Amino acid sequence: MTNHFYIVFLSFLFFSCDGKRPVAIPDAEPIAQEQQAEERFVIVLHGGAGTIEKKNMTDSLEDAYKNKLAEAITTGYQVLQEGGTALDAVTKTINILEDSPLFNAGRGAVFTNEGRNELDASIMDGKTLKAGAVAGVRRIKNPINLARDVMDKSPHVMLYGAGAEEFARRINYEMTDTSYFYTRKNFEILQQVKSKSKTAARSNSRDVILNDSKFGTVGCVALDKHGNLAAGTSTGGMTNKRWNRIGDSPIIGAGTYANNATCAVSATGWGEKFIRSVAAYDISALMEYKGLSLEEAAREVIQKKLPKMEGDGGVVAVDKEGNWVMEFNTAGMFRAAMTSHGEVVIGMYK
Amino acid sequence: MTNHFYIVFLSFLFFSCDGKRPVAIPDAEPIAQEQQAEERFVIVLHGGAGTIEKKNMTDSLEDAYKNKLAEAITTGYQVLQEGGTALDAVTKTINILEDSPLFNAGRGAVFTNEGRNELDASIMDGKTLKAGAVAGVRRIKNPINLARDVMDKSPHVMLYGAGAEEFARRINYEMTDTSYFYTRKNFEILQQVKSKSKTAARSNSRDVILNDSKFGTVGCVALDKHGNLAAGTSTGGMTNKRWNRIGDSPIIGAGTYANNATCAVSATGWGEKFIRSVAAYDISALMEYKGLSLEEAAREVIQKKLPKMEGDGGVVAVDKEGNWVMEFNTAGMFRAAMTSHGEVVIGMYK
Repeated sequence: MTNHFYIVFLSFLFFSCDGKRPVAIPDAEPIAQEQQAEERFVIVLHGGAGTIEKKNMTDSLEDAYKNKLAEAITTGYQVLQEGGTALDAVTKTINILEDSPLFNAGRGAVFTNEGRNELDASIMDGKTLKAGAVAGVRRIKNPINLARDVMDKSPHVMLYGAGAEEFARRINYEMTDTSYFYTRKNFEILQQVKSKSKTAARSNSRDVILNDSKFGTVGCVALDKHGNLAAGTSTGGMTNKRWNRIGDSPIIGAGTYANNATCAVSATGWGEKFIRSVAAYDISALMEYKGLSLEEAAREVIQKKLPKMEGDGGVVAVDKEGNWVMEFNTAGMFRAAMTSHGEVVIGMYK
Repeated sequence: MTNHFYIVFLSFLFFSCDGKRPVAIPDAEPIAQEQQAEERFVIVLHGGAGTIEKKNMTDSLEDAYKNKLAEAITTGYQVLQEGGTALDAVTKTINILEDSPLFNAGRGAVFTNEGRNELDASIMDGKTLKAGAVAGVRRIKNPINLARDVMDKSPHVMLYGAGAEEFARRINYEMTDTSYFYTRKNFEILQQVKSKSKTAARSNSRDVILNDSKFGTVGCVALDKHGNLAAGTSTGGMTNKRWNRIGDSPIIGAGTYANNATCAVSATGWGEKFIRSVAAYDISALMEYKGLSLEEAAREVIQKKLPKMEGDGGVVAVDKEGNWVMEFNTAGMFRAAMTSHGEVVIGMYK
């Protein structure tokens, strides 16, 4: 695993994206003999998979990503360190990524074919197998929070668009102006994808921008001190998506799954392929029914089963023992992890 | 299995629901020694599970259900007998049920809290693992057809509401007036459920009408002469559903799943529980990874795993060998099956 990303050891000091506020990664807890098994905790996140290569990245952009990933993983780690729940850690970590324009979720959601932003998210509690999801919301700043409230405060699992927003209003959410989700970068990418789509239809080319238009999503999985697992995923979907397309992120079993008996998984990639392969639940099923380890199960799905249907993407996952993986079959995946046994990882490229 | 439903042998003559047109169930093909293994074909359908009991049924209503189930299963059987695909058989069988006001799908879709009809459907091809789904459509007469067109004619798997209808318009669907889905029975049930919901919130009672408001869906699975499996599901969802709720029927892995390597499954029941347990794919995973038979896998999910989370409902499923099941944990499930090896089954009660 070590050659897949660089490992940042203890107390490495980052500066956050806006350059104003230093983000310190706190010392990971020392691995002590007396440490209780149930106190082991882990948090792992992804910020999307795709054609993420050094050659396409400036130093300042790379720093911005590193800093935001560090801030997000630290936020979730602190929740766990203070005895908070995996659900809280996952939600708060994803909030940091949703609030950044760097990732395709919340603030940085990509544009639909019609030039709008339609956001999807889901969350699952490994302890109760309860789940919540929203799709196609347009005025919710943090869709992962609404997914959580669907789980906690409604009799349903999945709500769509205007209905989901009506539910949000009833529980006193503030509606965000749709202009909040406008970023010039994403709007330009939409124009490029639209233009390249026409060319590609003629030439059958495999264009980087076109290829990456399918990707970008944020997600997080955690194991807390109480032994509970949780997983969450949030996204703006696919650039140039049409007809109120719903991808894998809000689909329990496809983009998100958590079960204390096995593992918690959050996926990112070409959503249609993840839906058809029921990717997140498949990792859990391979562990439960076939006895694979988390690492074997994730590799089976991401490196063998998905490529058979040309499915690009990746997952982050953690199991009940605290084993964790970041598995992807793309050129890169934004990712980070922190564990109570001293691991701190931030990575982008393969 | 035989005590679960009554078996109607060969050439039994039914009259269709409107009483005008006799529906003959054709002779099932004789089981001949020389019959090719690849020619074995099977079709199984459900018309929803719930509190379906003899005491709540009049003779004429019972006849109407029997006749419509017979018409639907015969339609799909004939497609298969003539060498048609499992996908075609599933689609055409579901069309018969969608066009009848007796079932909660298409014409007979139940009402949302707002007094509207929002229809969901999905279909999956076991040969290619391709899938299509629509949710929240309001002006599509046969949502299963649109789900199939999403699979065949769009780059996406799942489309919602107005977007799905825009896609339909582009491929020349006629928009159905929303009044087509009005049935007095369903509108009265909505009023009863609304009224009883208030009472139940105070008394915590378990009311039959309230309980059944979660159910009703139609679905079909088939194995064709070419050895291919397919599954499809179509529904009006849950009476009194709110906030553009999406249930399990349009979710690949939850309400519908098909894979030539294992089985084809269509579910009906309390959708939220089927989503959380990834029920349809779970049956496939238990077969593939744990080596269970179709019957064992379906029983495990419907009789053991779902009841643990108070999940009521059932499935119909067929495997690649032509084994088939109708498994449910409710008082009844509308169901029918016909096979090339001479089985003809129509049932309602346990």
